[in-house]
Amino acid sequence: MPQGKPLVVPDDGSTTRQRRNQPLLMVHTGNGKGKSTAAFGLAMRAWNQGWDIGVFQFVKSAKWRIGEQTVLERLALLHEQTGEGGPVEWHKMGSGWSWSRKSGTEADHAADAAEGWAEVKRRIQAERHQLYILDEFTYPMQWGWVDTDDVVETLTRRPGRQHVVVTGRRADPRLVGAADLVTEMQHVKHPMDVGRKGQRGIEW
Amino acid sequence: MPQGKPLVVPDDGSTTRQRRNQPLLMVHTGNGKGKSTAAFGLAMRAWNQGWDIGVFQFVKSAKWRIGEQTVLERLALLHEQTGEGGPVEWHKMGSGWSWSRKSGTEADHAADAAEGWAEVKRRIQAERHQLYILDEFTYPMQWGWVDTDDVVETLTRRPGRQHVVVTGRRADPRLVGAADLVTEMQHVKHPMDVGRKGQRGIEW
Repeated sequence: MPQGKPLVVPDDGSTTRQRRNQPLLMVHTGNGKGKSTAAFGLAMRAWNQGWDIGVFQFVKSAKWRIGEQTVLERLALLHEQTGEGGPVEWHKMGSGWSWSRKSGTEADHAADAAEGWAEVKRRIQAERHQLYILDEFTYPMQWGWVDTDDVVETLTRRPGRQHVVVTGRRADPRLVGAADLVTEMQHVKHPMDVGRKGQRGIEW
Repeated sequence: MPQGKPLVVPDDGSTTRQRRNQPLLMVHTGNGKGKSTAAFGLAMRAWNQGWDIGVFQFVKSAKWRIGEQTVLERLALLHEQTGEGGPVEWHKMGSGWSWSRKSGTEADHAADAAEGWAEVKRRIQAERHQLYILDEFTYPMQWGWVDTDDVVETLTRRPGRQHVVVTGRRADPRLVGAADLVTEMQHVKHPMDVGRKGQRGIEW
């Protein structure tokens, strides 16, 4: 909430506005629901500000389409047609990333993840987007499919004004250390605990 | 994720589909960021399913407009124009609720909150919406502006297929007890900790 008062005001020679407008590295982690949902909720705010948004879904099957993709792509079309909001690109792993269009082998997820990160890295250097959502990106980091030190260094030294959100369980301490904003979504209770599976409109 | 396996399968005579499609009472609580953002992210999924959505923002000033409101109202307009998605109504407290249009006295927040809850209660009885977002509704409960037992009983006994999300810190144990899905968003790190205030596109 914008009415919030900072706990400390650093004596760093910056104005409040300068500090306020620094680009953020955000992490949504924990074993609870809401990590990706909150990231896509943030994308609505960003769209409304006219920001250029890039979504990169690691891990999720390409066959799987969540409601947020449909909505954000609809908003992207609206931007093209009317100039409202900002542009949105949505890329997902699975049978190949949408920018590469190679026919998927379904086999080498590790290579797919590495290719995905290489592209994100190129875009960060080129300052291509204003908001990056690296959805479920903690898993390729955990599994050694991408180099965590490379990720942390690239994100820490990113040029210009680029906001990044990384989602997924068990965020690496190095990523948490480098982040400006970290929220842990903790599971308290879920319908699956009592034998109820996910449902349309709620889980996707 | 829909691939998830329930921990237990209850022997309650219901099919998986019946259990799956039970309406949910959800709570996003905790001291971290993402409670409301995840609720509005959920609204994108619901819109995509064509659900009727009612958002009720308790506490927030009516002068304050977050990006999600602009986006969801834009999606509501799209629904009216093209039939895509579902309808969305967005109501907020402050200088009067949008359905009542009374001129605000700015004075009696307790009465405003009670009036808001009375309207939500009427709508629940009438099965008016498929998804209710009661944003920051834990505060009027805490402050005794609405009767927590009445809220819990009304939400527990709500008829038909109506999903409800309640957001806010310090959710009452009775509400948590009645809920199907509870996530606690825990604050790990926030720019305000180091003297950086909220910014456009991130906090609103």
